[in-house]
Amino acid sequence: MVVAEIRIELKPGVADPEGKNTKKALELLGFNDIKGVRSIKMFEIEMDADPAVARKECEEMCRKLLANPVIQKFRVDLR
Amino acid sequence: MVVAEIRIELKPGVADPEGKNTKKALELLGFNDIKGVRSIKMFEIEMDADPAVARKECEEMCRKLLANPVIQKFRVDLR
Repeated sequence: MVVAEIRIELKPGVADPEGKNTKKALELLGFNDIKGVRSIKMFEIEMDADPAVARKECEEMCRKLLANPVIQKFRVDLR
Repeated sequence: MVVAEIRIELKPGVADPEGKNTKKALELLGFNDIKGVRSIKMFEIEMDADPAVARKECEEMCRKLLANPVIQKFRVDLR
């Protein structure tokens, strides 16, 4: 059994309205030393495969469904 | 400058419809060795504070805004 962590984030330069609004809301709550907030999506996938296969499959999942390759990049970590 | 990674995930036992539906969609695409999918939210926060203060502030941000303590747990990592 392998657990893969897939981390999907926006490519540099792509606007992140969720992060921007989160920053604004935190500042309204009185947090004044925030320089930037970025939002990141993760999936933890439990798989019944050996690590090399699992990694390949996770990358394929990202390309086919989980990530938008135009604006997002992804990283797969196994543990 | 400190970068804090805040990881927010559902507590054990709480239903995860996003993860469940992601699993279903991946299976429809032909990925058959998936045992479970969990969805996780992350924020990367750049702060102008020293590490101990940043950690405290991030935990307060989670309690006040970012996480729902009834169904979610959070973890703060600094780097």
